[in-house]
Amino acid sequence: MPEPLETPEGRFQRQLEFLFEIDKVKSIVRKTMLFDGSRRENDAEHSWHLALMAIVLKEYANEEINLGRVVKMVLMHDLVEIDAGDVFVYAPTRSEQSAKEEAAAQRIFGILPSDQQQEYLEIWREFERKETIESKFANALDRIEPLLQNYKNRGQSWIENGIPIQSVLARNQPIEGGSKFLWERISEILEECIALGYLKHEYPKSS
Amino acid sequence: MPEPLETPEGRFQRQLEFLFEIDKVKSIVRKTMLFDGSRRENDAEHSWHLALMAIVLKEYANEEINLGRVVKMVLMHDLVEIDAGDVFVYAPTRSEQSAKEEAAAQRIFGILPSDQQQEYLEIWREFERKETIESKFANALDRIEPLLQNYKNRGQSWIENGIPIQSVLARNQPIEGGSKFLWERISEILEECIALGYLKHEYPKSS
Repeated sequence: MPEPLETPEGRFQRQLEFLFEIDKVKSIVRKTMLFDGSRRENDAEHSWHLALMAIVLKEYANEEINLGRVVKMVLMHDLVEIDAGDVFVYAPTRSEQSAKEEAAAQRIFGILPSDQQQEYLEIWREFERKETIESKFANALDRIEPLLQNYKNRGQSWIENGIPIQSVLARNQPIEGGSKFLWERISEILEECIALGYLKHEYPKSS
Repeated sequence: MPEPLETPEGRFQRQLEFLFEIDKVKSIVRKTMLFDGSRRENDAEHSWHLALMAIVLKEYANEEINLGRVVKMVLMHDLVEIDAGDVFVYAPTRSEQSAKEEAAAQRIFGILPSDQQQEYLEIWREFERKETIESKFANALDRIEPLLQNYKNRGQSWIENGIPIQSVLARNQPIEGGSKFLWERISEILEECIALGYLKHEYPKSS
């Protein structure tokens, strides 16, 4: 997209508009709660936590990762929810979200100057495609945080939404593609959740 | 600190404890509000926003920066407030905070394995010392976000706390040490805030 009239001030103005727009992420409420169970988490808090998880846990990626790229991915991965909304990881309609999220990414990153627009769209699409080791690791962290929250909150979002153990295992097994070590640890935590009754084979309200 | 008995599981356990502990940052409420004025911002949201500002605005640093280091700084800079609390940027007792924050940093990063403890303490201290270009830029962003929030929210935290224009200028002028370009833009925004009456020379309640 040519921007023949881009002045330094005009460029900065677009960047500022983007930084104002993304503030809305702080008002997108997730299904899981803070680790102390006091209230539901929002997407900005979640993204911040994932970035720190990436920094602290990077040694466990299956291959050496470009940490900077993983951090950018997790910081930006939920911006599309400003338009597309948060869809629960276990929701059956999840696959229908892709087109909505692509349109959202184009609008939201489209606020920026074209060079940054392209760069961040590519980072976001890489996260969504889950093909590179960076995106597999970033996606693993995105799964792990709510599992740990459920562990601390006695299975809160599993119980509220009637998610049985088979769904939790199937939906989270891709963690292994990002980190075999973390998948082993998470599997142990899930076994503990079953033993403690936080996670069941079937819930009364589920089929 | 020798850790003769550190097993992979023990190491992971410390990292996990750290990741649980830092969740408390989401409950530390700041003086400024979200850009839409709906509620006060918390430290996790603030840190997430600063990380995205670092990524989007890095071209404006006075010298070329190590972006990864800036991002780590802004993601971690407020962890010490878990113990030391949030002190308003214009508070007269701000300098007394240093000892409290150093103790907090030692306790909180001390949860981690010793190699990470040292690495992150050093990053946090670098941010506090404001000597390197990375820390000057990170500190500039930390000042800029609340200024922009006040611009959008009609001077909310300045008015509530009776902060006159002289204090705002004096306290934020160090932005220039991180980015001359951003300080020029912010100065224009502050002039607009004065013209709009969001920022005054004196408030009834201030001396």
